[in-house]
Amino acid sequence: MISIAIMGYGTVGAGVAALLEDNKSRVTRAAGTPVDLKKILDLREFPGDRFSSLITHRFEDLLEDPGIRVVCECMGGKTYAYEYTKKLLAAGRSVVTSNKDLVAAHGAELLKLAKQSGVRYLFEASVGGGIPLLGPMSRDLGANRFREVYGILNGTTNYILTSMAESSAEFDVCLREAQDLGYAERNPANDVEGRDTANKISILASLAFGKHVYPESVETEGILGVSHEDILLAESIGCRVKLIGRALLDEEERVYAFVAPHFVSSVNRLAGVNGVFNGVILRADAVGDVMFYGRGAGRMPTASAVAGDVIEAVRTPSSSLPPLWEDGAEISDGSEHVSRWFVRSSVPVDASYFEAFDMISASAFMTGPMKNHDFHRRMDLFRKKYPVVNAFRVLD
Amino acid sequence: MISIAIMGYGTVGAGVAALLEDNKSRVTRAAGTPVDLKKILDLREFPGDRFSSLITHRFEDLLEDPGIRVVCECMGGKTYAYEYTKKLLAAGRSVVTSNKDLVAAHGAELLKLAKQSGVRYLFEASVGGGIPLLGPMSRDLGANRFREVYGILNGTTNYILTSMAESSAEFDVCLREAQDLGYAERNPANDVEGRDTANKISILASLAFGKHVYPESVETEGILGVSHEDILLAESIGCRVKLIGRALLDEEERVYAFVAPHFVSSVNRLAGVNGVFNGVILRADAVGDVMFYGRGAGRMPTASAVAGDVIEAVRTPSSSLPPLWEDGAEISDGSEHVSRWFVRSSVPVDASYFEAFDMISASAFMTGPMKNHDFHRRMDLFRKKYPVVNAFRVLD
Repeated sequence: MISIAIMGYGTVGAGVAALLEDNKSRVTRAAGTPVDLKKILDLREFPGDRFSSLITHRFEDLLEDPGIRVVCECMGGKTYAYEYTKKLLAAGRSVVTSNKDLVAAHGAELLKLAKQSGVRYLFEASVGGGIPLLGPMSRDLGANRFREVYGILNGTTNYILTSMAESSAEFDVCLREAQDLGYAERNPANDVEGRDTANKISILASLAFGKHVYPESVETEGILGVSHEDILLAESIGCRVKLIGRALLDEEERVYAFVAPHFVSSVNRLAGVNGVFNGVILRADAVGDVMFYGRGAGRMPTASAVAGDVIEAVRTPSSSLPPLWEDGAEISDGSEHVSRWFVRSSVPVDASYFEAFDMISASAFMTGPMKNHDFHRRMDLFRKKYPVVNAFRVLD
Repeated sequence: MISIAIMGYGTVGAGVAALLEDNKSRVTRAAGTPVDLKKILDLREFPGDRFSSLITHRFEDLLEDPGIRVVCECMGGKTYAYEYTKKLLAAGRSVVTSNKDLVAAHGAELLKLAKQSGVRYLFEASVGGGIPLLGPMSRDLGANRFREVYGILNGTTNYILTSMAESSAEFDVCLREAQDLGYAERNPANDVEGRDTANKISILASLAFGKHVYPESVETEGILGVSHEDILLAESIGCRVKLIGRALLDEEERVYAFVAPHFVSSVNRLAGVNGVFNGVILRADAVGDVMFYGRGAGRMPTASAVAGDVIEAVRTPSSSLPPLWEDGAEISDGSEHVSRWFVRSSVPVDASYFEAFDMISASAFMTGPMKNHDFHRRMDLFRKKYPVVNAFRVLD
């Protein structure tokens, strides 16, 4: 038997406790031994809760209990979660978490600390909710060299964009609807400004390429500028507008990572990822393209991923494995990256500044494939003559 | 360093050797130690091949070399592969394989033998080519209770059906085209009669439900009866015809597994899985529905999965893990299973035998949802009056 603890008895923490208890026989089978929830750290009391007897308010009760081998950090944030995680790893406890902010900001440091203590630091739940992604990338696909990883990584913005496409409503209306349904937070800035997706693509890129890609290196644009007119124009040419996080290696093995709304062509499988669902495509040398799809958030999907990491930490508690990634990524500015672009003005335009182009309407067009620096040079000239409302990359 | 061997230096075996060598640094990183290919068993000589010095013709050279910890069985078949696998497992070597026939026929026995010897028997490559499926099911999703697993599991038949839909050609023409492209074997019976899919769903069902579901328990129908007219009728109502392998638990926790051509509604994500690609949907209590998609066959995708299992066997060589499954599945005859059905006759029909129905043409219709036994009872009556050309389940 292995004893574990949970820090933070909120939505995710309570889901993990319930799942480990309700599916005890499945967890025992997968882990090879029973997993016993011994303590739960939370500042609050939970009278009447089935796990109320496990609640403690003192972090030291976890840290100083040598029987606890794995701790699920479900607190969120980068202050206490960071401090507690460091103390636990240093004390030889494996830590598993859904905390994408913390992993994106301090992953390399925490992975190194875990390695030094001979324990695991795992965070499957930080990207794609319950969809297995980080585990398959590091184990099942471990013989592959990754060239690219990209996807729809934020359910809130995908719900809003899907809803704008289906209901002909503008952003504000769809955001309020998402908030009413609990799919968006009262303060949605982190989602709609693309920062949540940036954290997730930074984690995926770090794992794929073995070097920490910090969110500060991710070019980030959210969906605030997407209007219903863009969506209608996209549909008129068989595209969907999606917020895409993407990271790829350039020819010099530098990482180019960005988050932005894209025109996604219907031939790309991400075009069919709607509502709160997430979809991620991995491109690797041996396996080719593989795609993973499922619910990117929610109490039980996230709990499924945290519990999966508990199982992994129990199965392989400490080992000769190197850290999943280290510091030292070389970052590309993307100037050589080739895309097609959608450009929309508020007035009829002559798109010949871009040489190869297809008009979509009198005031909107799609460029041919061109390098970023070339596109931006031509855009500077174009803007001198025409007001530009939006410019989005196209994903084929 | 860990030494390994490969049995069978054909398409897959040679791919595994090349991948382990070409991506050595990735494999070392994922496994935590270098993986050294020490011997290759094959009856043939390979003069000039980069690995020719490793070739041996004697199985005993592998069996009696205590330095070899993991053996990749890439021979295929159920005769020598079965005998050698048993001897290797009994001698304390982990075995990894792409051999779906062997796993579907003898998985429970071989898993038990591996457990007794404290080693691993792994077969990610047996289902879905390089798509991570069995690993995620047993580890990342290990805290879930699975209710259902289904998908498009055979690239050959999916290529033929896609080609029939896109080219208006009949089965024979599309089969020959698939053979010319190397997507179908000269003797395609195993694929087109559904037996390959039956083996794969038997493996997925066994893993999902923890008890061996033998292929003999899988109701199996291939695609020989699918005509271009069925495909046109399917498209007229927004469906695609796909060969689906499906396994689910009924209310008494019995397994109902079947392989058959289905009318797949466009709302189902499998409708968009075309050509040689595979797609698998898992339905589980915590994570909900997750889908995995990628190339279901081919030298390097399959090698990627075999190498992933080598990595897993090196990371966790022997452990307290119970066998992935055991004997003793309770099988349902499916009589209570509810579906809608597409029925086509060669003459105009009156479908009122089925109470609820929608006419698609004068001679074809779709029933309402009904239990299998009810559908077959009504079909017996219907057949007395009308010649029935085809009856396919509908997948929503």
